[in-house]
Amino acid sequence: MSYKAPLQDYAFLLHRVMRVQTLDIPGYADLDEGFTGAVLEEAGKLATEVLSPLNAVGDREGCVLENGVVRTPSGFKAAFDRLRAGGWMALDCETEFGGQGLPCLMHTVVNESFVSANMALNMYQGLTHGAYSALRAHGTAEQKAYYLPKLASCAWTGTMNLTEPQCGTDLGLIRTRAEPDGAAWRITGTKIFISAGDHDMAENIVHLVLAKAPGGGEGTRGISLFVVPKLLPDGSRNAVSVGKLEAKMGIHGSATCVMHYDGAKAWLVGDLHKGMRAMFTMMNEARLGVGLQGYAVAEAAYQAASAYARERVQGRAAEGAGPAQPLIAHPDIRRSLMDQKAFIEGARALAFWGAALIDRGRHGDAGAEGLASLLIPVIKGFLTDKGFEATVQAQQIWGGHGYIEDNPASQFVRDARIAMIYEGANGVQALDLVGRKLASDGGKAIRTFLATVLAECQAQDGDPVLEPLAKPVKRAAGQLQEALGYFMSVAGTSPHDALAGSTDFLHLMGHVSLGLMWLRMARVAAAEADTSPFLQAKLVTARHYMTRQLPACALHLARILAGGETLMALDAEAF
Amino acid sequence: MSYKAPLQDYAFLLHRVMRVQTLDIPGYADLDEGFTGAVLEEAGKLATEVLSPLNAVGDREGCVLENGVVRTPSGFKAAFDRLRAGGWMALDCETEFGGQGLPCLMHTVVNESFVSANMALNMYQGLTHGAYSALRAHGTAEQKAYYLPKLASCAWTGTMNLTEPQCGTDLGLIRTRAEPDGAAWRITGTKIFISAGDHDMAENIVHLVLAKAPGGGEGTRGISLFVVPKLLPDGSRNAVSVGKLEAKMGIHGSATCVMHYDGAKAWLVGDLHKGMRAMFTMMNEARLGVGLQGYAVAEAAYQAASAYARERVQGRAAEGAGPAQPLIAHPDIRRSLMDQKAFIEGARALAFWGAALIDRGRHGDAGAEGLASLLIPVIKGFLTDKGFEATVQAQQIWGGHGYIEDNPASQFVRDARIAMIYEGANGVQALDLVGRKLASDGGKAIRTFLATVLAECQAQDGDPVLEPLAKPVKRAAGQLQEALGYFMSVAGTSPHDALAGSTDFLHLMGHVSLGLMWLRMARVAAAEADTSPFLQAKLVTARHYMTRQLPACALHLARILAGGETLMALDAEAF
Repeated sequence: MSYKAPLQDYAFLLHRVMRVQTLDIPGYADLDEGFTGAVLEEAGKLATEVLSPLNAVGDREGCVLENGVVRTPSGFKAAFDRLRAGGWMALDCETEFGGQGLPCLMHTVVNESFVSANMALNMYQGLTHGAYSALRAHGTAEQKAYYLPKLASCAWTGTMNLTEPQCGTDLGLIRTRAEPDGAAWRITGTKIFISAGDHDMAENIVHLVLAKAPGGGEGTRGISLFVVPKLLPDGSRNAVSVGKLEAKMGIHGSATCVMHYDGAKAWLVGDLHKGMRAMFTMMNEARLGVGLQGYAVAEAAYQAASAYARERVQGRAAEGAGPAQPLIAHPDIRRSLMDQKAFIEGARALAFWGAALIDRGRHGDAGAEGLASLLIPVIKGFLTDKGFEATVQAQQIWGGHGYIEDNPASQFVRDARIAMIYEGANGVQALDLVGRKLASDGGKAIRTFLATVLAECQAQDGDPVLEPLAKPVKRAAGQLQEALGYFMSVAGTSPHDALAGSTDFLHLMGHVSLGLMWLRMARVAAAEADTSPFLQAKLVTARHYMTRQLPACALHLARILAGGETLMALDAEAF
Repeated sequence: MSYKAPLQDYAFLLHRVMRVQTLDIPGYADLDEGFTGAVLEEAGKLATEVLSPLNAVGDREGCVLENGVVRTPSGFKAAFDRLRAGGWMALDCETEFGGQGLPCLMHTVVNESFVSANMALNMYQGLTHGAYSALRAHGTAEQKAYYLPKLASCAWTGTMNLTEPQCGTDLGLIRTRAEPDGAAWRITGTKIFISAGDHDMAENIVHLVLAKAPGGGEGTRGISLFVVPKLLPDGSRNAVSVGKLEAKMGIHGSATCVMHYDGAKAWLVGDLHKGMRAMFTMMNEARLGVGLQGYAVAEAAYQAASAYARERVQGRAAEGAGPAQPLIAHPDIRRSLMDQKAFIEGARALAFWGAALIDRGRHGDAGAEGLASLLIPVIKGFLTDKGFEATVQAQQIWGGHGYIEDNPASQFVRDARIAMIYEGANGVQALDLVGRKLASDGGKAIRTFLATVLAECQAQDGDPVLEPLAKPVKRAAGQLQEALGYFMSVAGTSPHDALAGSTDFLHLMGHVSLGLMWLRMARVAAAEADTSPFLQAKLVTARHYMTRQLPACALHLARILAGGETLMALDAEAF
């Protein structure tokens, strides 16, 4: 069965929950329901008809390295051409560079459909989008004019070269060197885990490479950002080559390459020795995109599993005789499906909110940008951890059939797994959240977040349907505050005690965030719940989240308050 | 790096925690530390030197079906021959059939090492062991004399044929038919997911097949058990063939076959129309073996990840300059490793306890058998759910390298996944626990379990080290009792409300069980903790389990008490 974009949920979130046209964000006034509906329906059609049928093909065939060139799976190039022809790649790129000029929010919604249908194929576009953003923010006028139209259309695709064999998270250990060569530079070194490092779907590949240029000092201070095209402006091949194509657990259709730079011709992007800052500017968008992968793959897995649960006849829901019933009649199958559904729909609302905050931040709202920066590690870490869990639950519904590669469940699990790892492993997201974002700007963002949650809770006081839903959210927000208090009490004297709780804090804040999303959705649904099964389901699912997911906050708080004592007590040899 | 059997932990559990020689179980008096140490060291050596190096080979090559015959990966046959030659397959088989006559407990410990080193290869032996048990319990004297010596030595291997395309859990839907043919029978039908259904490592394959014989009535009542050898006693081929070799997510070295029976010659095992009962008798052992796979693979994944965490230099544990440190210096990496360690060591203790209860039950102790039957769904479901989680955590420590198939982490995750599914999916284990085992024999087993937990807690009263560890276990036991009370209050009127909490109850009971295990281990360790880093680590890890894992009980209780309302409210079409 093929994936179908959840168009009704998109419309519900955009127009009834977020009420995007009222938001006073540049470009949002144009997002009337007729327009977004038409765009998303068309994107959904492409996802269903073009991308989804290639998902299993990509997994089975994978990419192949032949004579130094990567060949993508059958049908990928034709599908990529269709996306390119439809202008889908450039949705939120500037019109001056050939883009559609739509907000990040619209790109996010379309992206969800494309990722659900075919995560691996969508990687090529996602990386290109990142390269576009980096060059737009830091490139010279000449670089912009040369690269951006090609990247916006995906005539050329982009890559991000950070990781090396000896360093991933810790970029201070980078060994790739840049040497000046007239007005340009020469890059030498080896980069690993380069997604879309080579392939056969574009005329040229634009590598953005972090390297150390002379005179920058030790650690990350010496790092600069360079652009290294595979084909040089004169049409000749640059000295960059694929050393190896990695065999991975999943996303087989995405080419993950070892890249060798042997004195490759390069041009500086942004200021010398300020490469880290240049990378940071596009991090929020990139991490939002990975968080989205977490729940988007879970959505596809959920659709397949729930269809199977409706069809597959096995056992009786209550003991005794009588004919066998479909799986969906069994309470434990329902538990699993409701947990998946409550997570996915809440995650979607959170990702859309994050995109709207990024849009607001782009237009100079520092408060929105601060809140987005605070939420991004939660969106990335929580949605990918929980998204993976959801795909595993979806696979479980298939029984033994879910373990066989003839069915889609295994691929969803194997694909979803990477989102917890790349673009900053989730432990690093937790460190970013607790070690940096909580305290940044004097803690303004987390105070804004908590105030937002508590205001939404208080607004439901006295409402017979909504107050019982607000109560557990308020309790969870209190647990978040207690965790913050604990962190403050130990921050000065024993930072290990705070960092020992970083992952649990990220999850605690993730649950509070989804609690807030469900409260917002329930408020809208309650206003007219009698009339629509869709809205009634929203209220039931909100209750499900409050009663069966939010209680996890107490567990995370208990783990946080346990501090680091048992973690740090043993010698390294005791493990 | 190669897997190493945790011999020190084995000895600690067998001789200091369980004190096996004092247990008054037939055969246990002979298990002195010199003897078990020698056996387990030799098994560990085989695991490290013979089985572990073939684990990645098996994953990479998989099995291949050629001209109707399954070829196992390179080296599997030679390794299997070595295990056979050493008598390792027949450890707890009766001496009259060529076995070593050791208790199930010793088989379990050896099995852990073998599964950790190579789960896929060990499947062939495990299935054979199951066939041996079924024929020993239900076969005629002639069948025993003919089959058991061959199965004990693994000269012949066995299979279990239950599942068909239209039925897994619900065996009442079986379509495979048996027709009488003189003193024998003819079997016709298709069975799927048959592990070790064919391969090149044994002279003959002995299929145990569930089929419907005429006159048994509808549903599971009509089912009988048959033995169907691949080669008939006269040396000719029986009418059984491999229809397909499945491509799976993991355990690639284990041949999972579709088997066609086309009027295959068969002999009845046990009573006609009592096939289900015959299968049930070996279920406890089989499910203990799968629960063991859950933590045994996690142990191997943990060993690889902790070695990587000690070696890999990346980042600084505290902010600021200074040289990069190994991963293991970081609190969040420690959190992950300690969670894995606390689970694995507790799980091992629980599995060994389960094996000892099975040994006691085999010798006529009905109370022990009842307790084993109660614990088996917990051992199977909890240890495989949590074991999978632990392998995923271990993979996460590798960062991007864990997603690349050059490293072992991905295989551990893919292999561990199946243990949650086969031998009764974990949702079915939860149903068995809540819908059947809790109430069986008037609830005697769960009362015994709770009394055991509370007695262990009370015994620590007044001890400054142990009482603080006992308190959270006592609280968790109280939460288990509260859940039981809730189930009793709804059992008569709304069974869906109880079944809605079945998986959470299984996990709640799993945590209480591991809490009990850690309390037992801590009691022994506390007696001489000053003298040994190993024992000191036990105390730290016990504290870790109590403070960071047991609080999950409150979450599971909250989910249980939420009942089934939000689960059953929606129409099937709402999913």
